[in-house]
Amino acid sequence: MRLPLGSFGIFRSLISQRQTAETHRRSLSGAAMRLVQFRRRGDTGGIRVGVEQGEGLSVVDLKAFDPSMPSTMRELLELGDEGLESAQRALASGQCVVDRADIQLLSPVLAPEKVVCVGMNYRDHCLEQNAPIPKEPIIFSKFPSAITGPYDDIILPAESQQVDWEVELAFVIGRRGKHIKEEDALSHVAGFTVANDVSSRDWQMKRNGKQWLLGKTFDSFCPLGPALVTTDAVKDPHSLSIRCLVNGDTVQSSNTDQMIFKTAALVAWVSKFVTLAPGDVFLTGTPPGVGVFRKPPVFLKRGDVVECQIDQLGSIINQVV
Amino acid sequence: MRLPLGSFGIFRSLISQRQTAETHRRSLSGAAMRLVQFRRRGDTGGIRVGVEQGEGLSVVDLKAFDPSMPSTMRELLELGDEGLESAQRALASGQCVVDRADIQLLSPVLAPEKVVCVGMNYRDHCLEQNAPIPKEPIIFSKFPSAITGPYDDIILPAESQQVDWEVELAFVIGRRGKHIKEEDALSHVAGFTVANDVSSRDWQMKRNGKQWLLGKTFDSFCPLGPALVTTDAVKDPHSLSIRCLVNGDTVQSSNTDQMIFKTAALVAWVSKFVTLAPGDVFLTGTPPGVGVFRKPPVFLKRGDVVECQIDQLGSIINQVV
Repeated sequence: MRLPLGSFGIFRSLISQRQTAETHRRSLSGAAMRLVQFRRRGDTGGIRVGVEQGEGLSVVDLKAFDPSMPSTMRELLELGDEGLESAQRALASGQCVVDRADIQLLSPVLAPEKVVCVGMNYRDHCLEQNAPIPKEPIIFSKFPSAITGPYDDIILPAESQQVDWEVELAFVIGRRGKHIKEEDALSHVAGFTVANDVSSRDWQMKRNGKQWLLGKTFDSFCPLGPALVTTDAVKDPHSLSIRCLVNGDTVQSSNTDQMIFKTAALVAWVSKFVTLAPGDVFLTGTPPGVGVFRKPPVFLKRGDVVECQIDQLGSIINQVV
Repeated sequence: MRLPLGSFGIFRSLISQRQTAETHRRSLSGAAMRLVQFRRRGDTGGIRVGVEQGEGLSVVDLKAFDPSMPSTMRELLELGDEGLESAQRALASGQCVVDRADIQLLSPVLAPEKVVCVGMNYRDHCLEQNAPIPKEPIIFSKFPSAITGPYDDIILPAESQQVDWEVELAFVIGRRGKHIKEEDALSHVAGFTVANDVSSRDWQMKRNGKQWLLGKTFDSFCPLGPALVTTDAVKDPHSLSIRCLVNGDTVQSSNTDQMIFKTAALVAWVSKFVTLAPGDVFLTGTPPGVGVFRKPPVFLKRGDVVECQIDQLGSIINQVV
């Protein structure tokens, strides 16, 4: 499914609501930006990095503005503050603006070194499955090959009969570090985005020696986007409404204030084990309302449209094929 | 610990045995090569790819031979047969040879998209822990940040009291693929190398919701090397003696014929879930003799030297610091 070719009524209706109802929320203070990766339509070539002029609005093409700018988000983040300042200059210039209709939006990060995932991290999600509130974060992972774009398809694998949704707040590391203190942790975070931690419950819960990896890492099981919203552009990442809709029906609705281990705690925790690097993606756990704990359980089927929404960050909309 | 600065008697003695006792086993048939990554001593700059003139012998510097050659193994593998043919031409030229004393050997692959690990994959390792023989491979992962060089240090983390060794046959993907058939699988494998799947048993077995990832992925917990021995250079990867020595004492000694799921089966299995990419590393499981199942259990301590050996592939020697 590629915009604007979607031919499903419900999908078109969701997109159209988004474009008309949402306001222009870009802050100009600090390094407040909505960074994206995109490909120009009809251009089979490379990935480009851009800055949205506002949520869902036109995009400033960084490399068109300055050919010395990097072509990928990971490279941009590796430049640190200098990279973000260049991006701000490009945005402020008002030049090299590409119309939304002329681009295909990609995941804001591709090929990170790590996709770090957190399990059982919403109080209300623990309650729905009668599980104790964890005393330490539970960390698992997806392979980077699972990442797909904000409007790309979720591919239903023949190997699973129980594919489920999980809307999650994601954040992206902007600065390398090990043994990061909780009080310094947010300075290592470049920004936030929306994720769907698509999960094959049969593989996650019943097979593979109960190691979650395989059930979580099928190709296309990590839609991300639409933009990397820089830390300065998000008022309080732990006070955001978070929702998942399947075919227009709200199936998950909570607030990131329900998270047990918040962004800074997760950065500090994981950096005890591994060196974090620019581009590393964290998926911070899902609120209640997943399909597997419904009575009776509900799973995704071909043709379903899943929309994951987080206030201030935006929406990703993926069709199941 | 950097060669030749090692000041520990046992370590020097192991290296010296290796250099004098091992014979020159390079086959000249097919694309039989021992590919390495290295850095020239005193050169703070980039990684280079080379071909050993024989196990432990001098190295042909590919980029010195042809400046258009790639600088990393992953890029070389992405070139496919063309890349390997160029490497063979460089080797055959006898030019651009760098003395072993002038290089620091690195892991033969760095920054792969995936480090795929297999648990419980030796019959005799299952028996030692009274575990049933798995009917399907058990797949988990390390983050690529865990990879370290064949003679680099294993860093004992303050967070773990139970760090253990696991010698493993590793292989590296050379050709992209999804849903690869078992009969085609070996054509997707570039070659083999030696790994130590260093494991923190407290974190693997008792914490993190029993998800193995954290206990397996501390920085430096994946020593790899010394060379990527191409598939054509290994007579039968499933008939190789495999050993681990700690401070010179043999603690693991088995044969890769004990593997339950062999290379082709693992490629076929994992590619049902994910697209495999050039550079992806597989660690295929460990034979019996790990520290945690000894009576009483034994764990690595500061100053220990761990050597992992596989016939035809070579040895990696890592000091615990």
